[in-house]
Amino acid sequence: MHPMETLSVHILGCGSALPTTKHNPSAQALTLRGKVYLVDCGEGTQLQIRRQGLHFGRIHTIFISHLHGDHCFGLPGLLSTLSMLGRTGELHIHGPEGLTEYIDAHRKSFLAECSYEIITHEHDYRKSEVIHEDPSLCVRSLPLSHRIPTMGFLFEERCAARHLDKPAVDFYQVPRCCYPAILLGESYTAQDGSIIPNNRLTKPGRIPRRYAYCSDTEYFPDLIEQVRGVDLLYHEATFGEDLRARLATTAHSTARDAATIALKAEVKRLLIGHYSSRYTDVTPLLDEARSVFPNTTAAQEGLIIHL
Amino acid sequence: MHPMETLSVHILGCGSALPTTKHNPSAQALTLRGKVYLVDCGEGTQLQIRRQGLHFGRIHTIFISHLHGDHCFGLPGLLSTLSMLGRTGELHIHGPEGLTEYIDAHRKSFLAECSYEIITHEHDYRKSEVIHEDPSLCVRSLPLSHRIPTMGFLFEERCAARHLDKPAVDFYQVPRCCYPAILLGESYTAQDGSIIPNNRLTKPGRIPRRYAYCSDTEYFPDLIEQVRGVDLLYHEATFGEDLRARLATTAHSTARDAATIALKAEVKRLLIGHYSSRYTDVTPLLDEARSVFPNTTAAQEGLIIHL
Repeated sequence: MHPMETLSVHILGCGSALPTTKHNPSAQALTLRGKVYLVDCGEGTQLQIRRQGLHFGRIHTIFISHLHGDHCFGLPGLLSTLSMLGRTGELHIHGPEGLTEYIDAHRKSFLAECSYEIITHEHDYRKSEVIHEDPSLCVRSLPLSHRIPTMGFLFEERCAARHLDKPAVDFYQVPRCCYPAILLGESYTAQDGSIIPNNRLTKPGRIPRRYAYCSDTEYFPDLIEQVRGVDLLYHEATFGEDLRARLATTAHSTARDAATIALKAEVKRLLIGHYSSRYTDVTPLLDEARSVFPNTTAAQEGLIIHL
Repeated sequence: MHPMETLSVHILGCGSALPTTKHNPSAQALTLRGKVYLVDCGEGTQLQIRRQGLHFGRIHTIFISHLHGDHCFGLPGLLSTLSMLGRTGELHIHGPEGLTEYIDAHRKSFLAECSYEIITHEHDYRKSEVIHEDPSLCVRSLPLSHRIPTMGFLFEERCAARHLDKPAVDFYQVPRCCYPAILLGESYTAQDGSIIPNNRLTKPGRIPRRYAYCSDTEYFPDLIEQVRGVDLLYHEATFGEDLRARLATTAHSTARDAATIALKAEVKRLLIGHYSSRYTDVTPLLDEARSVFPNTTAAQEGLIIHL
């Protein structure tokens, strides 16, 4: 597959609220076909983008899961930088209620001479619906259960349902003007009146890859059907079972909780993160998750997963 | 001198607005007698505080020079972290007009359950006046000339004017109850009626050390008298003379400008910083400043200067 065709997840930050020297707060970049989609934007994200060699000019759309500082305090700096760099294209930012007010609070003082238009979209975090579509990607919101309105995101690559079978259409001498109808499923009637069925002229398209981002949330079984069978599930694992007592007040998950969701949803691979600052080494969290769902990876800054 | 008595300047960030992998945006910590005074707070400052082993619990007062993002976008994260760590003591933040509105914009959403009281103080950036006093430090505002209201800060250690000369007071058998009056300048009348003059009982106190922080500003000669003779002058040097053409629109200084202020003000030592992202190596800026004022140091993250 051409590298541009690869859907990749770049971990820019996988810590939680308290700053540590090991982890940055939450931020990820998805790259696909030359575009960068930013998911959450904790403090320092713009520096992480630069460190990982991603291009500011390629940032296409931003998704914010919820308005806790460790998921959004990097936005003002990033938005200012994009203006200093002379961005002209509209920038769409999606998130739960409150997003517009947060951005607007910075507009007058810090973005008064912004070089581009910022368009915020607030979505009802209780619904799962398509919130963004472009020729490369379709993004659906995922209701999560946290202390404030919080949504996850399901990213699904857009692939053609079926491709033309080039040797077949050449063999049957199908004129080019008929290609669009064939791609839409029609059969072809040849000069001699014979009908060539569609499945002789087309091949199945690639199965679209799917990535689910779920942070922050307590153990939330409603999620299972929403993320069933995804290629990669990122699920927060703030604590291990040793700190399960912390869940009641924080509305976070343990590594075991994350793995249980992955197991029940029969996902292909699990990625855990959003580690509490109490863990200087996340190996116990990884071990705990793997005991339930073996194909688990622990996020770390700089990690890139190609789907 | 006891380490606690040392006035030290810690460089947390010395870059300018555009993020680079070499420099963090503006922030410095002054430490004196176990207290930490924070000067500017660009994005990522809380992480720099942790990296340099400074204690969040010791942050005493914060000074913000102006409300450009590279000098204040780290505040919301830091203020949230202090609350998560359970700070109880009031936190005073000083800066120019607009500071209160900026902090208030974050209060409702992010600091609704703040564990401590945040008290902002807005000062007229056109005046030089004492804006903070405590037993260790006196801080005076310094008018600067930038694109928006901007102030520098002159930090002056508070030392007793004169110290008791312990061997002398013991020799003259001065009772302890007379010490306060002697420290205020009175002479002592001994049992035999003889008068011991104050200068026989006391020694001059240490000359208070002074540190001037001046960022951001264009070349501003009014500053010279304000910072005359300070032990250390931090003056921005965003550009070198090669980019002097950029000054007109940016209202910054060149390294030569910074050194000229230092020379004319007869300061003891100059520290330059706030480097434009155009300079991947700041040696040319340092050389340029030293050609005018030899005792110049180039700031870099992690540098600590003990005065």
